[in-house]
Formats: sequence, structure tokens, C-alpha cells
Amino acid sequence: MNYKAGDQLSDLEAMRLAIAEARKGVGSVAPNPPVGCVILSRDRRLVTVGYHKKCGGPHAEVEALSQVADPALLKGAHVFVTLEPCAHFGKTPPCAEALAQLPLARVIYGLEDPNPLVAGQGAKRVQAAGIITEVWRGQDLPELEELIEVFRCNIEKKRAFVAVKAAVTLDGCVAESSGKSQWITGPESRKFVHQLRANFDAVLVGRNTVESDNPRLNIRGSDGEERSNRVVLLDPNNRLSPGLKQLALWQCRDSASIFQAVRAKLGDEVGGGVEWRRLLVKGREAGGMDLADLTSQLFSEGICSVLVEGGAFTHSSFFQSALVDRLYLFISPKALGGKAGLNWLQHFESRGLDYAPKLKSRCVMTFGEDILISGHLSFPPT
Amino acid sequence: MNYKAGDQLSDLEAMRLAIAEARKGVGSVAPNPPVGCVILSRDRRLVTVGYHKKCGGPHAEVEALSQVADPALLKGAHVFVTLEPCAHFGKTPPCAEALAQLPLARVIYGLEDPNPLVAGQGAKRVQAAGIITEVWRGQDLPELEELIEVFRCNIEKKRAFVAVKAAVTLDGCVAESSGKSQWITGPESRKFVHQLRANFDAVLVGRNTVESDNPRLNIRGSDGEERSNRVVLLDPNNRLSPGLKQLALWQCRDSASIFQAVRAKLGDEVGGGVEWRRLLVKGREAGGMDLADLTSQLFSEGICSVLVEGGAFTHSSFFQSALVDRLYLFISPKALGGKAGLNWLQHFESRGLDYAPKLKSRCVMTFGEDILISGHLSFPPT
Repeated sequence: MNYKAGDQLSDLEAMRLAIAEARKGVGSVAPNPPVGCVILSRDRRLVTVGYHKKCGGPHAEVEALSQVADPALLKGAHVFVTLEPCAHFGKTPPCAEALAQLPLARVIYGLEDPNPLVAGQGAKRVQAAGIITEVWRGQDLPELEELIEVFRCNIEKKRAFVAVKAAVTLDGCVAESSGKSQWITGPESRKFVHQLRANFDAVLVGRNTVESDNPRLNIRGSDGEERSNRVVLLDPNNRLSPGLKQLALWQCRDSASIFQAVRAKLGDEVGGGVEWRRLLVKGREAGGMDLADLTSQLFSEGICSVLVEGGAFTHSSFFQSALVDRLYLFISPKALGGKAGLNWLQHFESRGLDYAPKLKSRCVMTFGEDILISGHLSFPPT
Repeated sequence: MNYKAGDQLSDLEAMRLAIAEARKGVGSVAPNPPVGCVILSRDRRLVTVGYHKKCGGPHAEVEALSQVADPALLKGAHVFVTLEPCAHFGKTPPCAEALAQLPLARVIYGLEDPNPLVAGQGAKRVQAAGIITEVWRGQDLPELEELIEVFRCNIEKKRAFVAVKAAVTLDGCVAESSGKSQWITGPESRKFVHQLRANFDAVLVGRNTVESDNPRLNIRGSDGEERSNRVVLLDPNNRLSPGLKQLALWQCRDSASIFQAVRAKLGDEVGGGVEWRRLLVKGREAGGMDLADLTSQLFSEGICSVLVEGGAFTHSSFFQSALVDRLYLFISPKALGGKAGLNWLQHFESRGLDYAPKLKSRCVMTFGEDILISGHLSFPPT
């Protein structure tokens, strides 16, 4: 989408451009959702664009408006914004108020605010100023919902949004059953995983993966520069503590970015006073930890979204708990065989095909030889 | 590729058009390979096209030449053919001879004849007539090799070409472990499978699939019309004989199209005199049947290519024998879980990731919600 000021845009082109703007904020705006805005003049020519850059900073509408050199261009203008303008005083004044003061013709927003307490309030305020204010009714754009999937999950479920990433063979193996550690997918896929990590507030792995792979789990940019991020370690029985400081993941981040999740009933034994963060998580009757409790605690700790990178036991546990919101499945075009490999969902047991979790809005991409299948995961009601 | 006579074509466009022509013959020309031909006039304008329609009928070059209304158009003409013109008298006179008689400027052929005994002979004959005769040296076109993959396998390995088709979940399950029979993939994928079947000389399934699914295994056209085809049943211990005539697959084809493969050592017990075809196949030390012997026998029976449709044990056996030339893996975007489902390669054991069979020239397509990953399968040397 290479538009320049003055180009004439249709509603669809404008909303798509607003989505592209919004995406620039992904990974930097939590706990806010990423939002993009496009302003067209009365005769539908592109005036300017804007996006929400970071939490606490100006919202997308205000960003865009601040770029308008000649206020006369706003007379009869069309404003496209991916999410309903806010109506409340938060860290910044309400955008609905700012828009209502202007001589606009239309404000078209992609989705209603997912917070039921404020949904519709912003639209109502703008409309009261005599501006045509409508939710997007054009071609179905699932990207709009994707932009706020983390925010919606946080608001509606009061827990961290969970994405699972797995790299598997054509027959679903994540590793040789011998446990030997080896890359399944190629360098192009692995590079994209680093981009993915930057979109999430933390990366989560199970103890076994930490012990067998000793991964760094940080973010390497395309320039090769490494960036630190938060990491969550599932370690129900507190096995990692003694050797934690020798691990690669300790070397490349400060200790306040390391969350060790252990079972609450170990509370007294493990004690506090560790240099990293410790989460005491409820146990489950079936063994392991209550992942619903874990994801709630993560949200309370300010981790709005988490990328679960394995291994097979951890993946299976999140599936068994129906706590997977999005899937990124990288498939390498080779076959290992069930007698030589470990399946990424080996320990998961759905209630049969009619009740199997399904991908919605699935997307297929290729990276080198590998194939990425991704989408929003929907579990049947239990 | 919607060209009309008189359109000016580049070499690449002409060869791609020849490939598209050749494809029209897939499924009808065995044991010959499908071949396509395109003729351009001296000034590179499209004169006509042709393809090999059925075994015993005219070759692609002769088909194309027979369409040329005005022989003057052949003066200085460019002929593109997907495979080297033949040099020997078979069921038809040699094409190389026919071409050599014409006032052509160039003959460009996609690949050398895979038969080492005649490779280069046809080209030599045309060249001797003063016509520039060259193998394709333009942009890499893996489609050329794909067109003759069955023929090459037949010539070089003296066995039927084997393609495996599986329909699986995101975690590689072909069925619920309860054995309950149910479609994994959607109607769009299943429709394409019927098109696929038409490209193969026979469909092959294991006894277990016959007993649990009672499939018809025939070809339903897009018009709903059913076509009969040959079917091969892997039935090492001759369990299917008693009930064979009650099966759906018996109802929709004549008995001479049904091949039952049993272990040779049962030869005396099972006797002959059945109404269907019986293949006595060598056993393997590890149990089951020697699939190398089976595919050789199939080739001797005039079955040049076979589509292996399952189930998991049959798929695994062909992989274990390194006897899979091509894979069609349909993936339905749902997750069943290793504790609820049966993996399509559950019984296969590669020697680890470094020795895992790999897809070459892999292709990704979507059918409704499903994803098809296909390609040529390459096994490491043993």
C-alpha cells in the first residue's frame, strides 16, 4: 500500500490503509490495542495517516490530526479508524471529543470497543455533533478483529492471550524421540519467529525444553541485534532454580524479566527471596498446573500476551485446558515417522473430531521450504 | 493461458503452453508419458498446439502438425515440445523423422528421453536435417520433470510409480483412535481427490481401510457421473476373500479391475480360480509384504502408477520401504490430539531428521478450509 497524499481512495482502500497503520504499533502498545487512522478530504483524497505508537502516547486519531497542516482540509473530511474512538479520559483526553469538535462529514470505525461498559459511547459522542458515524459495513475484514484479539481476550477473560508456536514435520513431530535437539525448520522460518516474539509480551516454555535445548528465547532483529524480552518458565516442581543462573536465558536478560511458575503448594518449601520473579500457581487434580490460574496471574503482572514455544507436553497442556487463542504451526516438508519422533500434541486428547479445536481465518504462508499455517483457534463449548 | 492463433509468444510462454497441453493427456496415455507441443511461425506467432491423447494414437508433434492448415507457416517455424521427439518406430512412425522433413528453424524440447538407450537419438536426427535442435535451457521448469515422473520411474526402476495421499489433522491424525470412520477433510478436498484418482492407473488401500470404511474408491466426475477404475487391495493374509463380493468396491467395477495382493507363501492355500485378479507377493522378514515385489508386479500388470490412500499402516509401510515417489497431504485445520487420534505415519521409523525423506518442488494449495501440501518425495540413500 504505497499511497501518497492527494491519492483518491475508496472506503475499502482507506480502511485497509488504517489497518496497515495500526499494525505498526503491534508489540509496543499493550495493554492498549493497536489502532490506525486515515483521514481523507471531502473529495476523498488522502490527507494523512496515524497510529497509536505506545501506551500513554497519543491515540491514532490524535496522531493523524496532528499531521494535518491545513485545517481547511478537515471540512467535510472522512475519518477511518480501526476501532471506535474512545470516550473516556484515560492517559489522554477522549478522541471522540476531539473528533466532535471538527467539521467532519463522516467517521467510519472498524469495530465497536470490546469493553461492554464503554461500547458505543464514543460513536454516540461523535454522532451527537452531527457527524455521520458508522461501524464498518464494507467487505469482511477479519484483520480488524485480529488487531484487537489480545485486547478483547484481556478485557473479556481477564487473562493473558495465548498463542502457540510449533515447528513440526509433515507428520507432526517436534523432535526425535531420542530427545536429540535439532532444528526442524529452516532459517527463514526461524527468522520470522524472532519477528513474532517481538509481538508478544513474553515467551513461555516448559522445563523440559529449557533443560534439553538451553535456548536464549530473546529477539534477534534482522540487523542481528539482540533485544531482551520477558520469559515465563513452566517449572511445577521447582527443578530449574539451582541451575537457573547458568542458563543461556539468564545471560541475555535482566532477572526481573524471568518468571518462574511453580505449583502453589510448594510455596513454603521454595520460599521467596529469589532474584527472579516467581508465580505460585494452583495445581490441577490431574497433575501439573492450573493454566487458567497461570494466565490470569500473567495478566495481573502486566503480561497481556504470551507466545508458547513448547515442548510437546506444554503445547498439549494448553490445548487440554482450551487455553490457546492463536496457533502458528510451521511445517517442514519432511517425514520423521511416529516411531522416530515426538508429536507436538502427543499428550492432548480431544473428545473426537466433532469436538476438535479448529482454526478460524486460517492463513497459509511459506518461508523457504517451510509452510506456516496460522489462525485463531476456536474450542468447542465444554 | 488463453492464447489465440496469431499471438506472439516468447520461448518461455511457448514452453509453458506446451506443458499445459501435455497435462491434458495425464491419466490417458500410460504407459507413454504425456507430451505437449506448440508451433510458432517464423515471426513467433502461435500457429497451433497439440498433445498426446492416448497410447497408440498420434504423438504430440504429429497432433500439432496435423492442425497446420497452411504448410507455408512451417517455413522457419519454431517447434516447442515437452519431451525429446522419439526416434524409433513404435505404434507410430518416429516424430524426429517427421520433423526432419520440414523447413523448420528450431526444435526446442523440454527434456531428453529418460530411456538411456534412445536419449539424444531423436534430437540428433532432427539436427542432422540442419534444424537448430536444443534441450530447454530457459527458466527452470520443474513441471517438465513432473510430466514424465511416472514414465521415468517405470523406465528406470521397472516398477509402478507410487503416490501417497493422506487427509490429516494439524497434528497428523488420519482417524480417531477408536477407529470410528469419519471424513477429516472437507468436500472441496474430497472433490479434488476424485480428480487425482483419474490421473493414476489404480488406487491402493490396505485391508483395514476396506473393512472399516467400505469405500467405493472409484472416480466421481464434477458432473456427479461415476467412472470405474482399478483397485489394489493389500491383504497379506487373504482375509478379504470371503466377503469381497459384498463390498462397495465390488459393486462399482468389474472384477477384472480388482487386484488382491496376498503373501506368496499362501499360494497353495488360497488357490487360484477367483473371479478377481490375485497377486502373490513375496513376504518380508519383518512381516507384511515386500512392497518392492508388489510394485514390480503391478508394473508387469500394466499398472504404471498407483495412488496409495491408506490407512496408517499401509502409508507407514510404503514409507518404511522408501517406495513413495510423490505425496499429497491434505491438512484439515483442526487438532485431534495424539491420545484421541491415529497418526498417518504412526508405524514409520526414519533414521532421524538427517535421514528423513523430504519433499522436493513442494507445492501448497488450499481447498476450502483445507491445505494441500504436495511434492516429489526424496529418500536418503540407504
